[in-house]
Amino acid sequence: VILHGYWRSTAAWRVRIALNLKGLSAEHRFHHLRRGEQRDAGFLRLNPQGLLPALELDGDRGAVLTQSLAICEYLDETHPVPPLLPSEPLARARVRAFAQAIACDIHPVQNLKVLNRLGALGLDEEARNAWAREVIAEGLAACEALLAVGGGGPFCFGPAPGLADLCLVPQLYNARRFGADLSAVPRLLRVEAACVELPAFQTAAPDRQPDAE
Amino acid sequence: VILHGYWRSTAAWRVRIALNLKGLSAEHRFHHLRRGEQRDAGFLRLNPQGLLPALELDGDRGAVLTQSLAICEYLDETHPVPPLLPSEPLARARVRAFAQAIACDIHPVQNLKVLNRLGALGLDEEARNAWAREVIAEGLAACEALLAVGGGGPFCFGPAPGLADLCLVPQLYNARRFGADLSAVPRLLRVEAACVELPAFQTAAPDRQPDAE
Repeated sequence: VILHGYWRSTAAWRVRIALNLKGLSAEHRFHHLRRGEQRDAGFLRLNPQGLLPALELDGDRGAVLTQSLAICEYLDETHPVPPLLPSEPLARARVRAFAQAIACDIHPVQNLKVLNRLGALGLDEEARNAWAREVIAEGLAACEALLAVGGGGPFCFGPAPGLADLCLVPQLYNARRFGADLSAVPRLLRVEAACVELPAFQTAAPDRQPDAE
Repeated sequence: VILHGYWRSTAAWRVRIALNLKGLSAEHRFHHLRRGEQRDAGFLRLNPQGLLPALELDGDRGAVLTQSLAICEYLDETHPVPPLLPSEPLARARVRAFAQAIACDIHPVQNLKVLNRLGALGLDEEARNAWAREVIAEGLAACEALLAVGGGGPFCFGPAPGLADLCLVPQLYNARRFGADLSAVPRLLRVEAACVELPAFQTAAPDRQPDAE
């Protein structure tokens, strides 16, 4: 498979972690988000959304999967061990809700595309960063509360990392990048500390990617 | 079960359609988004995100599910017939990606919360509506392209409605609400026309809810 990503795209980073947790290797192609390479015609043919990540499959006539959570669920269905989701429906719903609280309600509201849109409206860099900081801090505070019904650690929902954890760690990186206050999310930080002990998380980190600047 | 919603919340609307497609009934409680009732302490105890929808279960000690797509997948796993997702992993990934292209990349960037945030930065109503219009038009154009590998209609991915369709119809309502140009998305409009023939979609519509204004 070929993973189309960018070192600092948190959505692509989620899929890197998922591949690593599954023990799967991929060829990596990098598209420079700040230079707009995700809007090149060649990439738009792969993903008309012009977003990262995209996963090109070997079989299935080169099918291209988009949307990080859909890709992770595909990897989980086609390579079930180790699982990214628990087996029981209620537990699965909790993990998915936590992942979506990040992937729907935090990340898309603070990503480069939205910050560029704010810039076009005349907001300066400090105002744009403040927007990102507020969105992230508010969203992570809710995630902290969602974990109150978690599985007791060390990971978000129990003794093994999964879909929730692979969303959380990249979002905390963005939180620091924009200077969000993390003092209100001690549970999330404990989960992160457990995750970054694992090679699957370590080798997926942005600064370990060949396109890191 | 108790569904916490609001007539014009497109995320709650998705779950109403899912319940209808499954033939499941629910007690409905409404929280007035524009009056901020979703931030009342009583509701925050149910959903710390302060967002709609939330689904309170009868069993499982009154567990509360959040995030519309996670709720829909829970309903699909616990009531598999009729299915909201196809059975084959690649086909499931395509449907989920389409649903997430709306639920992650369009709706959260144009919802009331973001428009209020823009208002607090000084944008007037016309500028806020233009923001929503642009986000929706750009996102739906990508959805139109994603359907080029769809299942041939009449619904997004084949002969029966599912997770993609129940995201699409509410988003098209929002598109019209903000005056987005829909001339570039004929496939989406054909799918919508097929959906609104079905009672499951008709009875879930905003103007059919008791809290409609």
